[in-house]
Amino acid sequence: MTTVSKDAPDLTVLDGLARSLTPGALLTEPESVAAYRFDYTADAGAGVPLAVVRAASPADVQATVRWAGEHDVAVVPRGAGSGLSGGSNAVDGCIVLSLERLRGVEIDPATRTAVVEAGALNVEVKQAAAEHGLWYPPDPSSFEICSIGGNVATNAGGLCCVKYGVTTDYVLGLDVVLADGTLVHLGGQRVKDTAGLSLVKLFVGSEGTLGVVTRATLRLVPAQSPPATLVATFDTVEDAARVVVAVGNTLRASMMELMDQASVNAVEDHRSMGLDREAGAMLLAQSDAPGAARGEEIAAMERLCREGGARECFTTTDAAEGEMFVAARRAAIVAIERRGAIMLEDVGVPVPRLPDLLTGIAEISRRHEVEIPVVAHAGDGNTHPVIVYPAGDAGAKERAAQAFSEVMSLAIGLGGTITGEHGIGRLKRDALPEQLGPDVMALTHRIKQALDPQGILNPGAGF
Amino acid sequence: MTTVSKDAPDLTVLDGLARSLTPGALLTEPESVAAYRFDYTADAGAGVPLAVVRAASPADVQATVRWAGEHDVAVVPRGAGSGLSGGSNAVDGCIVLSLERLRGVEIDPATRTAVVEAGALNVEVKQAAAEHGLWYPPDPSSFEICSIGGNVATNAGGLCCVKYGVTTDYVLGLDVVLADGTLVHLGGQRVKDTAGLSLVKLFVGSEGTLGVVTRATLRLVPAQSPPATLVATFDTVEDAARVVVAVGNTLRASMMELMDQASVNAVEDHRSMGLDREAGAMLLAQSDAPGAARGEEIAAMERLCREGGARECFTTTDAAEGEMFVAARRAAIVAIERRGAIMLEDVGVPVPRLPDLLTGIAEISRRHEVEIPVVAHAGDGNTHPVIVYPAGDAGAKERAAQAFSEVMSLAIGLGGTITGEHGIGRLKRDALPEQLGPDVMALTHRIKQALDPQGILNPGAGF
Repeated sequence: MTTVSKDAPDLTVLDGLARSLTPGALLTEPESVAAYRFDYTADAGAGVPLAVVRAASPADVQATVRWAGEHDVAVVPRGAGSGLSGGSNAVDGCIVLSLERLRGVEIDPATRTAVVEAGALNVEVKQAAAEHGLWYPPDPSSFEICSIGGNVATNAGGLCCVKYGVTTDYVLGLDVVLADGTLVHLGGQRVKDTAGLSLVKLFVGSEGTLGVVTRATLRLVPAQSPPATLVATFDTVEDAARVVVAVGNTLRASMMELMDQASVNAVEDHRSMGLDREAGAMLLAQSDAPGAARGEEIAAMERLCREGGARECFTTTDAAEGEMFVAARRAAIVAIERRGAIMLEDVGVPVPRLPDLLTGIAEISRRHEVEIPVVAHAGDGNTHPVIVYPAGDAGAKERAAQAFSEVMSLAIGLGGTITGEHGIGRLKRDALPEQLGPDVMALTHRIKQALDPQGILNPGAGF
Repeated sequence: MTTVSKDAPDLTVLDGLARSLTPGALLTEPESVAAYRFDYTADAGAGVPLAVVRAASPADVQATVRWAGEHDVAVVPRGAGSGLSGGSNAVDGCIVLSLERLRGVEIDPATRTAVVEAGALNVEVKQAAAEHGLWYPPDPSSFEICSIGGNVATNAGGLCCVKYGVTTDYVLGLDVVLADGTLVHLGGQRVKDTAGLSLVKLFVGSEGTLGVVTRATLRLVPAQSPPATLVATFDTVEDAARVVVAVGNTLRASMMELMDQASVNAVEDHRSMGLDREAGAMLLAQSDAPGAARGEEIAAMERLCREGGARECFTTTDAAEGEMFVAARRAAIVAIERRGAIMLEDVGVPVPRLPDLLTGIAEISRRHEVEIPVVAHAGDGNTHPVIVYPAGDAGAKERAAQAFSEVMSLAIGLGGTITGEHGIGRLKRDALPEQLGPDVMALTHRIKQALDPQGILNPGAGF
């Protein structure tokens, strides 16, 4: 972790910035600033910011970026601070540029779009859309506390991606403040638009390194039908993965989650829900097909589970009963956190390689003497191995960090990715070249150089 | 149109290129070369290429681009030559780089992906996927003759986009030859991957201006259920558009097409199908919801049509009968082409602005004394006004060109786009700055400069 500088910075340099901002937008008191050092990723380390700007308008964002360019100061954009890769962790001497006050959400039912300021929470968009019978699908587990700006920055996913896709699939337009302070309007309320380069898509997932997103135009869809739910247990992860492939080839599951034996047992240890501790894997699937079709679809999934050797299989078309089973999945990370300090992975592999990934993770777990329970968005091969080690044990922490690194290498070797939905941030930056290779890294840096030649936007994050 | 140069070019410069290519890949005979001057867009003009390379491997693509860089020669990438914006039309002295021989299609049912070389036709991917019970959704009307490389270059759409999205939503990975000849591998068989910048998405829709795509990894989905079909007529386009909005807010139509009165009459003039010549607009919709739900969904659409004042409404759950109605829509462009020379637009607007767009087009039609029937992918606001004028009438052609330009300006003024799925190519390049504005044009040029500093890749196309 970066050490805190002992010299008090000269804050008079900030006078010009303060004058160009909405009164009160600039925070310089050490206690106030300290609250903006970290997102949810202590492991990635954080420096000490020079100051924090809580932008009250896009003009404040522009003024901050312009001032930063003039003074060659780094800008770390920040949404709700719920990032899991340290993408919003401060660097020494930076301005943390918080978008938390930009919270506007406007729903236009006629165009089926939401125009949303970057600081608005995902849940606020869902709620506003629901008032018009509409739905914003992307559903990271943190949807109640994460911002749309952060979702755009990381191309956030969630549980329903297996049928409905990820954030980028719903972003029709972006307002972005570029490194020179220019505010550009990209895309708009048009579902199909192939005029010019796909700049909207380039900014999605760029983790604040190419520009600061101030507003997004999001595509909405009709409200989701109440789902039918299936829970099935299998002797092995191999059996479960084969069923995931079979379901994916014939049906459109709206959820397809997997918990391995260690994560099932972690949940049971935390609060007994009557789950099968002996099962090698548990699948949790849903169908939100309209009307009678959801019953048919969940029955078809059940047939595939039974043909695939399920130990047990239970289905329900009662949405409330189904939610009780989903609760086991939602409880998993909390249950695992009770076991010690954790490091949360986000690796993905092609779905058929899930057994190889989990076998390899078990081996890494044994070798480094750390528990690594795994929960997975199995339908799209995105997994969250959670490396657990005793808090305060420096040796164990070192072994955990080694395991964290080896799990990423394992995923890369299986044709996978080191991040499916959390982003690279500052936590996984060292591992990225192994995945992308030197040519793609060079291409990445050329684009960065073209858009931010001074390198002031979120340095050290993303790539 | 660019005039053909009278001076024979010095072809000895090509000897080095010929030696670096697969034998027979280089064409220099004027008759052979002439066949590669135009795609389907005569209006955009075309120069005379120096030569044509019919690449037999990615290495041929690399060799061509490297040679072009060394000799400062333009490279115009070309798929199947079915483009509708002149994106593959040659420029004087260029190398036309044809990908038509790269035709490999490999389906991996376990990962539900297709690995496809750029020259493979869209229909070949659909057929190969179907053998495994899988489906590649993007369905441009030209799907039987257009290549995947061209689909990627233009971010092609089609009729099912209203539910299933466009090409970019299905591209998981790309092999791209950059301007310096480097072959990069972007993405892969991973459904979710947010590691590094969204480079795959940047290349989709870039019309060969940033690199030459040699291979794509495409996401497949389970085979589509047989659709139920609805045909409804309305007194006015306003009535029809209101129903399109109402359906979109509550149901997931897998097709939502509109024909205006002029296009209905053009079809009837060509071959009587018993369509209602008096109707102001005709809607054609489908539901492919699974099992019993498609009947329920089409019935719900029928209710919305009747509540919305439909003159007539007919539905069928018989897929073959439904296809007869879809045939009327598919026949429209052919029927319109019988009326004279045409210029095909591709403008899009937010769905609720469709009536304003069609009213404005009618006014432009009257003012310039050209017919402009309109067919539309109404569900996502993407329309194809077809400007018809007497072939060989220079004055009429001039009026048509003026109308073409004014329709684009009209769409921009309604918050729309000048191209929803065909691309900018060379045909609409002059209109792009009006849509994007100077700041976004400057951003676009910075990315181009970073990736192709010499400007050898498809100069004059895309932006």
